Amino acid sequence: MKNNTKVNAAILIIGNEILSGRTQDTNTTTLAKWLNSIGVVVNEVRVIPDIEKTIVETLNILRKSNSYVFTTGGIGPTHDDITAESVSKAFGVKYEIHKEAFEILKSYYKQGEFNEGRQKMVWMPKNAKLILNPTSGAPGFSVDNVFCLPGVPSILKSMLGGLKNKIVGGEPILSHTINLKTVESEIANSLTKVQNQNGDVEIGSYPFFHAGKLGVSIVIRSEKQSKIDVCNSQILKFVKEKNIEIVDR
Amino acid sequence: MKNNTKVNAAILIIGNEILSGRTQDTNTTTLAKWLNSIGVVVNEVRVIPDIEKTIVETLNILRKSNSYVFTTGGIGPTHDDITAESVSKAFGVKYEIHKEAFEILKSYYKQGEFNEGRQKMVWMPKNAKLILNPTSGAPGFSVDNVFCLPGVPSILKSMLGGLKNKIVGGEPILSHTINLKTVESEIANSLTKVQNQNGDVEIGSYPFFHAGKLGVSIVIRSEKQSKIDVCNSQILKFVKEKNIEIVDR
Repeated sequence: MKNNTKVNAAILIIGNEILSGRTQDTNTTTLAKWLNSIGVVVNEVRVIPDIEKTIVETLNILRKSNSYVFTTGGIGPTHDDITAESVSKAFGVKYEIHKEAFEILKSYYKQGEFNEGRQKMVWMPKNAKLILNPTSGAPGFSVDNVFCLPGVPSILKSMLGGLKNKIVGGEPILSHTINLKTVESEIANSLTKVQNQNGDVEIGSYPFFHAGKLGVSIVIRSEKQSKIDVCNSQILKFVKEKNIEIVDR
Repeated sequence: MKNNTKVNAAILIIGNEILSGRTQDTNTTTLAKWLNSIGVVVNEVRVIPDIEKTIVETLNILRKSNSYVFTTGGIGPTHDDITAESVSKAFGVKYEIHKEAFEILKSYYKQGEFNEGRQKMVWMPKNAKLILNPTSGAPGFSVDNVFCLPGVPSILKSMLGGLKNKIVGGEPILSHTINLKTVESEIANSLTKVQNQNGDVEIGSYPFFHAGKLGVSIVIRSEKQSKIDVCNSQILKFVKEKNIEIVDR
């Protein structure tokens, strides 16, 4: 698999709550599904703490080695929300009030409610472009190839629609799954042969234990449906020879 | 917060299925909770694809900058299970049959069932130490400060008990949560003051939307209960002054 030649992205999850195990991250799955659907391969995910130096350093590595970087978390009103200031430092630009964001939040809140805490959310890197937030007002933002989204999953999801025309993906990555009533070791050798004959297709094998059923999902991924079809036939051939049952999950 | 001075760990999730969004990782949460409970701070998590070069390079960075590294995934019998061979290369040691693992699996499987696919699972870095697997036979292993666990969450969980006396943690990280019926911006300034007065305590603020309730969880974390208590009192003081309701989640 040669991920690096494609339009690719890194996801940077910022938040102590994930590293402590308190919060189960689901934003990775949301972003990864969406990115794959628009032809962007996710190269890597990193989860890091709310430490400015770590955010700055990690961002500067990831933004240079990926077409896009998506950060989640740390853009709220409290003291532990340091993503916007860290992004400013990573790019070496001023951290300042974003006028358009200010106007958006000023009209979003009732008179008197746009307090100092909320005003923190309009401080952004200079010349940041806004990512509108249809759920709760406070926008995300992008600088160059870095897109900063909130940590709350439902709000993040609602903002992806507005991002679509800002991300230029490659060919969408197609996938096909075959679920088998077997164990991995029964098919390992045959599957290796199929993989060896189709080096540019990504074939994954994943055991599952689901609702009392035990089996293996074989996932075939490629930008080309024709390549998926070739692998699929080769796999179905050995599945039939081995008398393995194909199942729903 | 100075994570780096403590006993710390990195978690390395190996698997294309997480990066494609097909599979929701839960092993990070499992490992992070367990590590925090035994006094190991999780510094970072990385999710990387099943690419040998990436695994080798990432592992060599993480094992030098952390007390421990825990990998998940890629130790099964199929072609995409390349963790053991990659770990061998990262350490520059031979990738060979582990005799003890061989004996374990030979007696685990019925006669004739310990086939070539399954025998792949006993190939490990030379002198690897086994991590026993009470669920499905095939052991994980460790080399130096790197501990390699399977990707299937239920199996991974069942193996943590056997790891306990191999990991030397620091003081357990204690935490206390206060759930408030408020929004973050109402408490942001007061909370910043408490954080500034207690620089060595980690105070996180997390909005929640749960079962129709909307609120903020404040999480106070430290090795010292006394420091948590001090922060707790200071927070409860401003909560009372602001007439904010404390709620269950």
